Amino acid sequence: MPPDAPRLRAPAQRAPFHVVLVEPEIPPNTGNIARLCGGTCCPLHLVGQLGFRIDEHAVRRAGLDYWHLVEVHTHPDLPAAEAAVRASDPTRRPRTWLFSAHAETSYLDVDFTPGDLLVFGRESRGLPPELLAERPEQGVGIPTLGPVRSLNLANSVAIVLFEALRQVGALNGARLST
Amino acid sequence: MPPDAPRLRAPAQRAPFHVVLVEPEIPPNTGNIARLCGGTCCPLHLVGQLGFRIDEHAVRRAGLDYWHLVEVHTHPDLPAAEAAVRASDPTRRPRTWLFSAHAETSYLDVDFTPGDLLVFGRESRGLPPELLAERPEQGVGIPTLGPVRSLNLANSVAIVLFEALRQVGALNGARLST
Repeated sequence: MPPDAPRLRAPAQRAPFHVVLVEPEIPPNTGNIARLCGGTCCPLHLVGQLGFRIDEHAVRRAGLDYWHLVEVHTHPDLPAAEAAVRASDPTRRPRTWLFSAHAETSYLDVDFTPGDLLVFGRESRGLPPELLAERPEQGVGIPTLGPVRSLNLANSVAIVLFEALRQVGALNGARLST
Repeated sequence: MPPDAPRLRAPAQRAPFHVVLVEPEIPPNTGNIARLCGGTCCPLHLVGQLGFRIDEHAVRRAGLDYWHLVEVHTHPDLPAAEAAVRASDPTRRPRTWLFSAHAETSYLDVDFTPGDLLVFGRESRGLPPELLAERPEQGVGIPTLGPVRSLNLANSVAIVLFEALRQVGALNGARLST
């Protein structure tokens, strides 16, 4: 192991990936995604108009139990989130991945790198079609096999986030839980 | 490709894995897990006393929207579930994996094979300690990195099921969705 390896690994431990939700609508989904972020040291970025309030009282009432253990940021739009992520660690070159049922690339064919933004749209409608049309090279989907063709938003985030963590080796030697 | 390959592959497409929930307590979790099963052609096995009813009226009232698209089985105990799975396809040698926060093996170090049973316990308490003590070689956990040490049950199933599907190549060439 090169002598600077521990220093290089430290930021990856702090924020291996950035989870970005564009206009999430359903509090328990965002709550479960916050729990995933708190369990993996990944910041959670909420973009645009939210379907619920995230002040302390509202968070407590919605049962978002893990909210205080998560680094949460809000942004007016996706470019603002991307700029903030880039500014937070200038040593990285994060890429943006837009998760969509209309993408042509499987998440299993993406080479995730530490610091990438994993971007998910609304429960009801997904990401805005104009965003996906502007950035077709960033579109990624999750393959399914059965009669059900879409997954719960938090489950989609779980699947993608843990595949990305697996690829970069972030889970090796970590403590176990389920 | 050998001439019998399509026949050998057919059961893997039908039931790549078996998801087993022991005494689940919270209907929306079981609903989201049913959605995962419906999206991956995996049968869902419910074992022991359930925290809710699954007759047609109760399922509709609990908002389990994907229930009718999933192959659901109920069993009095885990050995009965294992026997039923073995009887459903005598060509396979399925193994049982018990997911637990107290296991010492990471799910990333398991070689999953088609037909394996992925077994998860109650939301509040996990799998029975006596079961885990009897079968330590079957215990598996999900590593976490952050201050939150446990994940939502449906998210745990999503992470493990899609890693198992990835390992056996079941998602290659499948249609995309998210």
